[in-house]
Amino acid sequence: MKSVFFAAASGVVLLAVSGAPAQADEGMWTFDNFPAAKVKSAYGVDIDQAWLDRVRGASIRLTNGCSASVVSPEGLVLTNHHCVVDCVQALSSGEKDYVQDGFLTDSREEELKCPGQQAEILAEIVDVTQTVQAAGAGLTGQAFNRARDASVAQIEQEACANDAGYRCQVVSLYRGGQYKLYKYRRYDDVRLVFAPEFATAFFGGDPDNFNFPRFNLDMAFLRLYEGDQPAVTPDHLTWTARAPQEGEPTFVSGNPGSTSRLLTVAQLESQRDLAIPVGQLQRSELRGRLIQFSQQGVEEKRIATDPLFGVENSFKVFFGRQFALNDPSFMAAKRAAEAELKQRVLANRALTREIGDPWGEIEAAQAAYAEQYMAYRQIEAVAGGGSSLYGYARTLVRAAQERNKPNGERLSEFTEARLPLLEKRLLDVRPVDRPLEELYLAFWLSKTREYLTTDDPATQLLLGRESPEAMAARLAAGSRLDDPAVRKALWEGGQAAIEASNDPMIQLALRMDSTARGLREAWETEVEAPTARAAERIARARFAVYGDQVYPDATFTLRLSYGQVQGWTHRGRTIPAATTLAGLYERATGAEPYALAPAWAAAKDDLDLSITYNFVTTNDIIGGNSGSPVVNAQGEVLGAAFDGNIHSLGGDYGYDGALNRTVVVSTAAATEAMRKIYRRDALLAELGVR
Amino acid sequence: MKSVFFAAASGVVLLAVSGAPAQADEGMWTFDNFPAAKVKSAYGVDIDQAWLDRVRGASIRLTNGCSASVVSPEGLVLTNHHCVVDCVQALSSGEKDYVQDGFLTDSREEELKCPGQQAEILAEIVDVTQTVQAAGAGLTGQAFNRARDASVAQIEQEACANDAGYRCQVVSLYRGGQYKLYKYRRYDDVRLVFAPEFATAFFGGDPDNFNFPRFNLDMAFLRLYEGDQPAVTPDHLTWTARAPQEGEPTFVSGNPGSTSRLLTVAQLESQRDLAIPVGQLQRSELRGRLIQFSQQGVEEKRIATDPLFGVENSFKVFFGRQFALNDPSFMAAKRAAEAELKQRVLANRALTREIGDPWGEIEAAQAAYAEQYMAYRQIEAVAGGGSSLYGYARTLVRAAQERNKPNGERLSEFTEARLPLLEKRLLDVRPVDRPLEELYLAFWLSKTREYLTTDDPATQLLLGRESPEAMAARLAAGSRLDDPAVRKALWEGGQAAIEASNDPMIQLALRMDSTARGLREAWETEVEAPTARAAERIARARFAVYGDQVYPDATFTLRLSYGQVQGWTHRGRTIPAATTLAGLYERATGAEPYALAPAWAAAKDDLDLSITYNFVTTNDIIGGNSGSPVVNAQGEVLGAAFDGNIHSLGGDYGYDGALNRTVVVSTAAATEAMRKIYRRDALLAELGVR
Repeated sequence: MKSVFFAAASGVVLLAVSGAPAQADEGMWTFDNFPAAKVKSAYGVDIDQAWLDRVRGASIRLTNGCSASVVSPEGLVLTNHHCVVDCVQALSSGEKDYVQDGFLTDSREEELKCPGQQAEILAEIVDVTQTVQAAGAGLTGQAFNRARDASVAQIEQEACANDAGYRCQVVSLYRGGQYKLYKYRRYDDVRLVFAPEFATAFFGGDPDNFNFPRFNLDMAFLRLYEGDQPAVTPDHLTWTARAPQEGEPTFVSGNPGSTSRLLTVAQLESQRDLAIPVGQLQRSELRGRLIQFSQQGVEEKRIATDPLFGVENSFKVFFGRQFALNDPSFMAAKRAAEAELKQRVLANRALTREIGDPWGEIEAAQAAYAEQYMAYRQIEAVAGGGSSLYGYARTLVRAAQERNKPNGERLSEFTEARLPLLEKRLLDVRPVDRPLEELYLAFWLSKTREYLTTDDPATQLLLGRESPEAMAARLAAGSRLDDPAVRKALWEGGQAAIEASNDPMIQLALRMDSTARGLREAWETEVEAPTARAAERIARARFAVYGDQVYPDATFTLRLSYGQVQGWTHRGRTIPAATTLAGLYERATGAEPYALAPAWAAAKDDLDLSITYNFVTTNDIIGGNSGSPVVNAQGEVLGAAFDGNIHSLGGDYGYDGALNRTVVVSTAAATEAMRKIYRRDALLAELGVR
Repeated sequence: MKSVFFAAASGVVLLAVSGAPAQADEGMWTFDNFPAAKVKSAYGVDIDQAWLDRVRGASIRLTNGCSASVVSPEGLVLTNHHCVVDCVQALSSGEKDYVQDGFLTDSREEELKCPGQQAEILAEIVDVTQTVQAAGAGLTGQAFNRARDASVAQIEQEACANDAGYRCQVVSLYRGGQYKLYKYRRYDDVRLVFAPEFATAFFGGDPDNFNFPRFNLDMAFLRLYEGDQPAVTPDHLTWTARAPQEGEPTFVSGNPGSTSRLLTVAQLESQRDLAIPVGQLQRSELRGRLIQFSQQGVEEKRIATDPLFGVENSFKVFFGRQFALNDPSFMAAKRAAEAELKQRVLANRALTREIGDPWGEIEAAQAAYAEQYMAYRQIEAVAGGGSSLYGYARTLVRAAQERNKPNGERLSEFTEARLPLLEKRLLDVRPVDRPLEELYLAFWLSKTREYLTTDDPATQLLLGRESPEAMAARLAAGSRLDDPAVRKALWEGGQAAIEASNDPMIQLALRMDSTARGLREAWETEVEAPTARAAERIARARFAVYGDQVYPDATFTLRLSYGQVQGWTHRGRTIPAATTLAGLYERATGAEPYALAPAWAAAKDDLDLSITYNFVTTNDIIGGNSGSPVVNAQGEVLGAAFDGNIHSLGGDYGYDGALNRTVVVSTAAATEAMRKIYRRDALLAELGVR
């Protein structure tokens, strides 16, 4: 009678801690530093360069924050349903709800573009550490930031200048210890091919999310297009309908979004004591508003489905993080690891002279963090509170100013190399749900007043004498930025068009801009710059002490993790490695979120219920890895990773091989469902399934 | 541009910490240990026994969790509006909204009973420490609890056996260091006389709550009745229309609800890392649901007003607490104070032998706390999630069992001395709003499933195969416990009636009862009993080291605090001690919560705008003190305390005289408003105002 959910709080004490060499199965390794020898000795399999090149060439980064893989020569892409649900929602309307009913296509003509979505395949990695670090050498504060940003902007622009089909991005690894240029083949026409019903993809809903046993068909297919034709993709993974075996080695290739394993104790304390609690309290209230909103009617429920899923998913992620950091023994382990590294540095005089006391410098920056956090958060970092219209307005207002500046002097998100995706996201057609816009805006405006207080000058500038609710209603009803043509005219019209605009959202973004930029500049100068300067030296110390047996924190760039199919044991209870389709029917109650989609309810007798549905592996992954192919040593796709278990929620800060698990939907079950429920014979043929 | 609200987090470092002798103006003193000499030396005024007796005899405890005072010889009682808003809401309906419009009476016949409300005046304090401590001597676990509870039940029953007009209650002070019998004159017929409009009483709403400057007429009048006639109350305070002066000594007599200043560091850490975060996350979501619910229509807004106020108020209180405990320097001060006390104990061998290591025992109990907390919370402590119907059902189910047991063996809330108030609360007529019931139930059921997980046996027992939403709708629509006659029949029918009932809420409470009792017993045995046994010895150590210069933690019993009218300075900004009526009109924007009630908007030109409206004093108070009279050395009422400033939110754990302030609505402004806006001439005459 205890809480498995809460058990996460006390299940993290064994986590590996930052900086020390990785445990067995730990690590989100870059493709240019994969520990193949370690894998060979642990699992007896050879991962050679050809294998790595093939998997890398079939691995996809989706720009909405997910991973995926190419699984046919005609551009077919496997990912998670929850990675395309925003697209499915955008393609739906009050008349046709593809989220509820699923999205099936009988011909390529029926495949529809996902707004804002771009797919990227990593083609090349180049080390640019020296160039970037040299640019900031000897500088501090905002001068340091500007020099680094300008150097990065220049490298990115030059590397992709002659390759319109590519995207170039300089990535900071090991918290500034390395800078690498990642060059991606980019596909800006990505279409939806297949998505199951929400009830099938997300069976068990929020209560089962991050738990296991699970019974989710959290998979979908997209297709890459070039010149309005399916892309030709000779580099692709091989689909298999064979179920994985317990103990089988597995490799997950994808883009883990972000980890904090290399943060110092002082940084973790700011997360624990300030950023996470405030974020979670606001997220909880927004969740409550969305739940109640969605109960007002069928259309409210439809438009709130994806936003609510997103908020609840984030809530659970940060719940796990908060309680990991609240565990005193976990923080003690972090302190011990930091102390060990410091001691080993102190034992080396030359190293001590070289790096100084970067831990102390980061600790000193936390005072500015605490002082500035709330205003920076409300007025800049989460401005708009999720409103698409406000997001469009701020992008338009700032782009008009930034695009007039030399590339090296712009805010980083407006540099030349980043403009194509920015422009695509801004101008793609996408429905705007005004009732949700009003909800987000009222929430943001009221929380800003609450957290900064009514008498704060930023609150006064934001609201004037208007109430949050009245202002939200006026903006949501009055803005015309939902029309892509209006956005395009403002994008092309530049500063003059912005200043002449009578759109109330443009006017608001314009009114707040100087204050918001000021808060951002102060944050970057007094928090980010000293942290970056110090973190770079900590990384240097870590390389000096531990060599390259460490992996960098996740940065939403391509990584490879290794592990095996394996259950786990916690507090005397053993959780098997896999579930079957039979389990789905046992768990179904008929009531949401345990209600079967009608086609599944009808098909029970036709299915082979012994087939493996979901399974867990020891791979070390985190959010951003969603949709990643789970590949065996032969390069066959066994499934798509879609979740972690409850113990993995502390994975932002460390990995515990005894408890942390990746949750995967099997290609075996997907094959069975496509054959007998969805009858997607053409897709099965394309996947090479007889 | 920084957050005054968040500033609370970093404004607590100077807090006095538990156990050490009190700072100037610190302390919630019992009337039998008031530091009159200290007051004399600090403020030059004499507080003699006659003064204490007079103030005590006019001080009221309201059983809904507030304080008040008698201000006329005919039973007129001054308290806060927010202390009667539940009554005003209960007396309102879709036809007549007294919350919005205010409640005015032109004759005594129009004064209406407040359901569930009892008023109590402290008549006598008797030390029963030896009897209670002797009962538990040598026992542990549940045997210790039972012996203590039986002893308390017997003392209470015997002390009030022949006095039906009294209530007897044994109070644990200094966390078990003392036990005192408090004997109260009780008034179970309390009627509403006067309440201003919500917009006037709570001007500035949640954003201004716990902030200052303030402009609230947060006051109301009740009247005590006996035998259907106004009570005769020769012991009453003198009303004054004179505004308070800066520096004037002030005394607050009331019932602070609860403080945690004597908790050990281990207990504070459990609060910080588990209880407060979980409570706040759930409270935030409920807040969001209520906000969205209240926007669905006029009637929804009306019925959600008081619940939303309550949730938002609690949220802010615990926000302050969470960030006080998250402040490392605050916890360091707590650790230092605990270490000092331990060291002084260790320096005294006899004392060391006598008390052992109670701190270690309490720390050991925190493992059980963490293990049991979530299930105990969801299934027992917050069961029903605020649903009145579930509350009625559980009381009825348990009363039927407990009333068959000997007094000493009952659950503590069902002992003889406590039954009269329990019965009154159960049987008084009070409207039940079914849409809110459904909201609360759905919230509680879904959070229980989320936090305990779907597969937990308690979740399964609670929900079966029903969804939280469907079950909530069925229970809210199907239960007849909203009818007092139905409740009365079940109360009188006892166990047989309960078992025969087909009321779905009774059936649910019955189904959960054994599991819930089991969780409670484990909690009491493994968490509360060892904590109580250890805390008693810590109290003994504290008395040995510091004598009676310490005051007990607040326990919702009568206390007296002293201080003066004084503003404060924080980060270079000085906040004056008082506001005027003129400030109200400057702050009004016309939009909620800064909209004036119509009568106030119309009366601006008639008022003397220079009159002091709200003011702050250095008195040390906390929730439960709301409605307390603020009295000067002459025994005149200067106002009613209704809030603390933002810095006082850490006041649960300590007091900082430089920053903590009590916020008061002045009798001067109340007089002006009653004269010129509400035209309550009879009330003014009764108050002796010419």
